[in-house]
Amino acid sequence: MTSLLDVATPALVVDADILDANIAAMSAALPGSRCRPHVKAHKCTHLAREQAAAGHAAFTCATVREMEGMAAVGLGADLLLANEVLDASRLGTLKAAGHRVTVAVDSAETVAAAAAGGVEEVLVDVNVGLPRCGVEPAAAGRIADLARAAGLDVRGVMGYEGHVVGLADRDDRRAGCDQSMHMLAHAHADVGGEVVSAGGTGTYDLNTLATEIQAGSYVLMDTAYGKLDLPFGLALSIIATVVSVSGQGEAPTFAVADCGLKALGMDHGNPAVGRLGTGPEPTVWFCSDEHVTFAPNGPVRVGDRVRVVPAHVDPTVAYHEWLFVVRGEEVLETWPVDLRGW
Amino acid sequence: MTSLLDVATPALVVDADILDANIAAMSAALPGSRCRPHVKAHKCTHLAREQAAAGHAAFTCATVREMEGMAAVGLGADLLLANEVLDASRLGTLKAAGHRVTVAVDSAETVAAAAAGGVEEVLVDVNVGLPRCGVEPAAAGRIADLARAAGLDVRGVMGYEGHVVGLADRDDRRAGCDQSMHMLAHAHADVGGEVVSAGGTGTYDLNTLATEIQAGSYVLMDTAYGKLDLPFGLALSIIATVVSVSGQGEAPTFAVADCGLKALGMDHGNPAVGRLGTGPEPTVWFCSDEHVTFAPNGPVRVGDRVRVVPAHVDPTVAYHEWLFVVRGEEVLETWPVDLRGW
Repeated sequence: MTSLLDVATPALVVDADILDANIAAMSAALPGSRCRPHVKAHKCTHLAREQAAAGHAAFTCATVREMEGMAAVGLGADLLLANEVLDASRLGTLKAAGHRVTVAVDSAETVAAAAAGGVEEVLVDVNVGLPRCGVEPAAAGRIADLARAAGLDVRGVMGYEGHVVGLADRDDRRAGCDQSMHMLAHAHADVGGEVVSAGGTGTYDLNTLATEIQAGSYVLMDTAYGKLDLPFGLALSIIATVVSVSGQGEAPTFAVADCGLKALGMDHGNPAVGRLGTGPEPTVWFCSDEHVTFAPNGPVRVGDRVRVVPAHVDPTVAYHEWLFVVRGEEVLETWPVDLRGW
Repeated sequence: MTSLLDVATPALVVDADILDANIAAMSAALPGSRCRPHVKAHKCTHLAREQAAAGHAAFTCATVREMEGMAAVGLGADLLLANEVLDASRLGTLKAAGHRVTVAVDSAETVAAAAAGGVEEVLVDVNVGLPRCGVEPAAAGRIADLARAAGLDVRGVMGYEGHVVGLADRDDRRAGCDQSMHMLAHAHADVGGEVVSAGGTGTYDLNTLATEIQAGSYVLMDTAYGKLDLPFGLALSIIATVVSVSGQGEAPTFAVADCGLKALGMDHGNPAVGRLGTGPEPTVWFCSDEHVTFAPNGPVRVGDRVRVVPAHVDPTVAYHEWLFVVRGEEVLETWPVDLRGW
């Protein structure tokens, strides 16, 4: 048995029991094809296999590399690249190899790229309020026409209400989601097809229009989603070693652990440092490349291990090569984070 | 010849001429051992070889992996791990293989770890004002005594004035640096040894106490350091493809390129998007996992390529597998970013 205490730090770890509970909660709420898990949140085919075992055969990807990696391990039954690309040739290769490949389109250029690359199925990506990709709802039908004229099969629409999935108040989230899905329904009426793909972890049970929910973060979670009223637990953390303590003894001023900017997605702010002392959470002061400086809430010694919980799961995972699956201090499995890069 | 237009995006690129000029400017100002380049900024042994060719034989690292990678390519003449570790066994292995290995220590525990791991040379790391690693100046002599008692060779001191290297005003930077180095000089008097290792890109020519400057960012640069009065140019950028444009024609509302949170260190804020139109810089609205949304300053079309300049070089490079060395649109070399991870 490998102990977590023997693993070099910083180490990305997932709590096996919380992971299992998160997967079970989602597959109970949205069984089978009702959830199309987004692999961008974990970038790990071993973890995707757990989601597949829970009944989800179709997956969402954000990059071509994620599509290729999923297909390579036999999870290519129904892969959606929920993103626009100008070079679809690698997707066409996947399609030619027998995998089901669907790509999002929102312009004449991306339609042409899908057709030129050998992809046969598309979803029309619709802007439902988040200023990112997606065509205006009123123009969705025109994109569908272009796609069909190019010989593509239009499976339906997608539209991500990313501007509302993180709203703290559930009623606000519901109202925002309803508004976005009202727009998507209009677009769907013009586009046709059987698929309405939308939603995320924050709206997984509020989005009742979508035929499938593209939830990703639910499986690992982070402190940002942890603040919402969701039935998913914080499964992911980073184990770090305290490498320096300033002010020795029972009341240190600050301490430094070996988990920094190159181990953490920082766009949602500082991580939390947990499990030291018995008072309120330690206060994080700042992160630098390889360090987090924090004010502990009790005694801490050089060599102690601490748990760092990231504010944003996706860009955190993308920094790490390995995911250690643990129960308590026992390392059950070591999974490669094998869907990184592009 | 490979064209930059044929490289899949997002692609981390370095301008060969600006890179050469940065290396030349530093080696002219701080020749040979006066500069101990910090590899954490680029994590690339090919780039380190260019620095070595300019006369710098000694290097600074932030992780054990960086130490191992540098040694593996024959750049192990004098490697400093400017960081504290509790397990120095991999460093001891490097030492046993004939590489010169020095590690920072700032506590009884890190001294014991160095000795136990088989490292023979240390620097006493001194806190000179940045609340991170390093012992209080008055206690530095005690750490040196502990190290010598453990059989270690104390080469001197190090102390990083990281809280002042980014100050916009040069006089403020100089004053802050002087104050920090006053502290480090006191510690050095108690510690002994011939090495005073300190400084960074922002103080490379202001820090006159240090016997060697640990500058890293100067070689690639970023928008944060680019605001200072430094003779180093922005060599690094990310080439991205515009995948979606909202509001077609001559005055688009916003556009989206495929360079997001997983391609950018975000702790210093949003990147800049450049080289579109002729007016002021495009305005970056926000980044998400795989996208940057920006308001262009002129016509932009799906499929256009744009240049994204990160706000913080170190955590940006750490996301990428390859560094493309370019002159204009010609790709001269492709270097692996081979010092990632821990």
